[in-house]
Amino acid sequence: MINAIVLINTERDKVNLVGEKLASIEGVSEVYSVSGRFDLVAILRLAENEDLSDLITDKMTKIDGITKTESMIAFKTLSKYDLERMFGIGE
Amino acid sequence: MINAIVLINTERDKVNLVGEKLASIEGVSEVYSVSGRFDLVAILRLAENEDLSDLITDKMTKIDGITKTESMIAFKTLSKYDLERMFGIGE
Amino acid sequence: MINAIVLINTERDKVNLVGEKLASIEGVSEVYSVSGRFDLVAILRLAENEDLSDLITDKMTKIDGITKTESMIAFKTLSKYDLERMFGIGE
Amino acid sequence: MINAIVLINTERDKVNLVGEKLASIEGVSEVYSVSGRFDLVAILRLAENEDLSDLITDKMTKIDGITKTESMIAFKTLSKYDLERMFGIGE
Amino acid sequence: MINAIVLINTERDKVNLVGEKLASIEGVSEVYSVSGRFDLVAILRLAENEDLSDLITDKMTKIDGITKTESMIAFKTLSKYDLERMFGIGE
Amino acid sequence: MINAIVLINTERDKVNLVGEKLASIEGVSEVYSVSGRFDLVAILRLAENEDLSDLITDKMTKIDGITKTESMIAFKTLSKYDLERMFGIGE
Amino acid sequence: MINAIVLINTERDKVNLVGEKLASIEGVSEVYSVSGRFDLVAILRLAENEDLSDLITDKMTKIDGITKTESMIAFKTLSKYDLERMFGIGE
Amino acid sequence: MINAIVLINTERDKVNLVGEKLASIEGVSEVYSVSGRFDLVAILRLAENEDLSDLITDKMTKIDGITKTESMIAFKTLSKYDLERMFGIGE
Amino acid sequence: MINAIVLINTERDKVNLVGEKLASIEGVSEVYSVSGRFDLVAILRLAENEDLSDLITDKMTKIDGITKTESMIAFKTLSKYDLERMFGIGE
Amino acid sequence: MINAIVLINTERDKVNLVGEKLASIEGVSEVYSVSGRFDLVAILRLAENEDLSDLITDKMTKIDGITKTESMIAFKTLSKYDLERMFGIGE
Repeated sequence: MINAIVLINTERDKVNLVGEKLASIEGVSEVYSVSGRFDLVAILRLAENEDLSDLITDKMTKIDGITKTESMIAFKTLSKYDLERMFGIGE
Repeated sequence: MINAIVLINTERDKVNLVGEKLASIEGVSEVYSVSGRFDLVAILRLAENEDLSDLITDKMTKIDGITKTESMIAFKTLSKYDLERMFGIGE
Repeated sequence: MINAIVLINTERDKVNLVGEKLASIEGVSEVYSVSGRFDLVAILRLAENEDLSDLITDKMTKIDGITKTESMIAFKTLSKYDLERMFGIGE
Repeated sequence: MINAIVLINTERDKVNLVGEKLASIEGVSEVYSVSGRFDLVAILRLAENEDLSDLITDKMTKIDGITKTESMIAFKTLSKYDLERMFGIGE
Repeated sequence: MINAIVLINTERDKVNLVGEKLASIEGVSEVYSVSGRFDLVAILRLAENEDLSDLITDKMTKIDGITKTESMIAFKTLSKYDLERMFGIGE
Repeated sequence: MINAIVLINTERDKVNLVGEKLASIEGVSEVYSVSGRFDLVAILRLAENEDLSDLITDKMTKIDGITKTESMIAFKTLSKYDLERMFGIGE
Repeated sequence: MINAIVLINTERDKVNLVGEKLASIEGVSEVYSVSGRFDLVAILRLAENEDLSDLITDKMTKIDGITKTESMIAFKTLSKYDLERMFGIGE
Repeated sequence: MINAIVLINTERDKVNLVGEKLASIEGVSEVYSVSGRFDLVAILRLAENEDLSDLITDKMTKIDGITKTESMIAFKTLSKYDLERMFGIGE
Repeated sequence: MINAIVLINTERDKVNLVGEKLASIEGVSEVYSVSGRFDLVAILRLAENEDLSDLITDKMTKIDGITKTESMIAFKTLSKYDLERMFGIGE
Repeated sequence: MINAIVLINTERDKVNLVGEKLASIEGVSEVYSVSGRFDLVAILRLAENEDLSDLITDKMTKIDGITKTESMIAFKTLSKYDLERMFGIGE
């Protein structure tokens, strides 16, 4: 399983709308509206590298109202939980 | 369940060590070492507001090697998964 | 009682108007027009986490003239005053 | 009554200690440990301009563990509450 | 006498025009067009706190062509000159 | 008369000391301790370009406790006051 | 052979289109769509300094959808590979 | 001779045009299109302070396509060359 | 083949030394010392995701003299060259 | 002739010393101590690309007291003067 975290800024009155659209995309596991400098944080969980490219450079760019994104690809995942089994992705 | 995302920078040679220490703390659900401007991203999942305060302003400040943190508290969580049940936290 | 501080920038000629609209919203305890890099600082005082989400991601986004906000959620409050009693919020 | 808001960063393991010291200073009405880029937010409420100068450029600079501060002086205060009476300052 | 310094950016072709308008406002003692990151620096000298609020959040916001301002309120003034007498303001 | 404005940051516990040392230097007309991101603002008023170079790149660099400076040279000065006569510099 | 690396930001929905246009220009050896703060990274490999000037200040500025670029010219190249031979450029 | 260096950003497709216009202005000695965060660097060499003010706050602001400038005035010039004689400016 | 670009800052007198050490690591295809805000740019070309994690969070953190890194993972690679064959990696 | 402009910050009390050392290096045509965010600006004029690499990544890194540099390589030079002849470099 490949994990990525995306920090997102939206037009002021579209935070909730963008959040809902993001959450409905396959591969987007969770979307949080958050306090601080960013509006939304999306957690992507995917089986393959290729899906990630498709998700970030194609599907996410088509959502209206996003003004800026900064994506971070997880090198390593440390967790007390068996995330792959829980989210049913990967191995 | 209260969720928080913490962006973390560490001393260069302590990324993995800090990551392991963070992951062992109760309430820290996942720790990712990531590409980009930050070194680690931690996802906190807790039952109560009070635990969050204790985790961020007390327990996390005692880990040696962290140079900067920026925490974001989730207002709303959108997910196709039943995260509360999966992580067994809060109702 | 949950406290949050929001740093706000507005369109140049709408500082006072935005300030007045913010101050009239329930849960917004005080609004200060301030010197420095920001135009307004709002202090939110609420009984419940849910109200905060509603206030920041919904009600505040509908005020015209705000260009940027950065919200900070209080983990802990230290005061010589009994703020909960004074503001009549929370336990 | 003159109000000022101060954004504060501290050495990582001194957030709580600095917060307590700040809260004990006369004229510091509230201190919040907060999520985000800053560690603490202090609200100062004073009767006179001179006290503010004394507080920010003298008393606060003597607290050990503060690494950066950014103060904002309130030009105008909008509130549903009678803050001067509640905090017993001014008038 | 209360002193404030305001760092100002303007639309590129309005530096001189904005400077002249600012200089004509009562309470604005001097306006400098300057080298560096900012276009203008205004020095405000006033008798009362209230005038400052009025000047910065009302009169200055009505000047067309200003894109950004950052105001700094003087806590203390050190000078070999008797500024209050020279500018005929305050005591 | 040549005017320059210098934005100054100091070590936290040396704001007042640095301010006093600066104010005693010939050519430094006024020093303000200020709210916001900077600690001090110095106004330099000199008869000659050469004095300015000497003041900024030599005399001011010898004051202990200054951590950062950003100087701005005035191209033009707009004022209701006859600053040259008042400060007895230039013409 | 002269190498240059260009960090590129594009309008959100034009990442792939801009990438393809860049990749088709002579002298642009590789274009990567990337995670993080930038959208694309282009590697330029050219025989002559003059071509680089032409590429960056002329050809690349004509591609629609680029919002910001930051170019870095390589002083020295260290590689286990014989890049000049592999890319058929220079000596 | 007074020297100033100006860092300039332009609209993407006007780098060369703005550069040519700048180079034709009296007092602008050299204009370089450059790698990195800025688009152009202009070197101004003038006999008098007044010309500099006129050049930067008037003539340069009338060139279409400039989006940002940051000017730096030289306090001192160190060179193995006799720049004043070479450029035929000043004493 | 997985590609990553790493922007690197080093201690001032260790640019060349760090560059040579980086270039000798397996998986580091090219290292460029560059003009601008960064000191070095490293291009990583690897067969597997796991190697990338090992390279960035372990091997590269052990090189003395690096002060900051910002890594970017390539989602997609566009090139007129058959990079995989040329560098003998992947497929 | 290849031109490069280098923006330089130094330790506060070493501006003049660093400036003099830089000016004595072959290939460094002019060094200016300047107003604003930077301390020094160096203009490099060289016959060959290789000399530039040697100057920036080797000779300049050996000068004590420099804290940060940002170099910009000139793609194109526009000037009313015949710089190559004047500085006796190139052609």
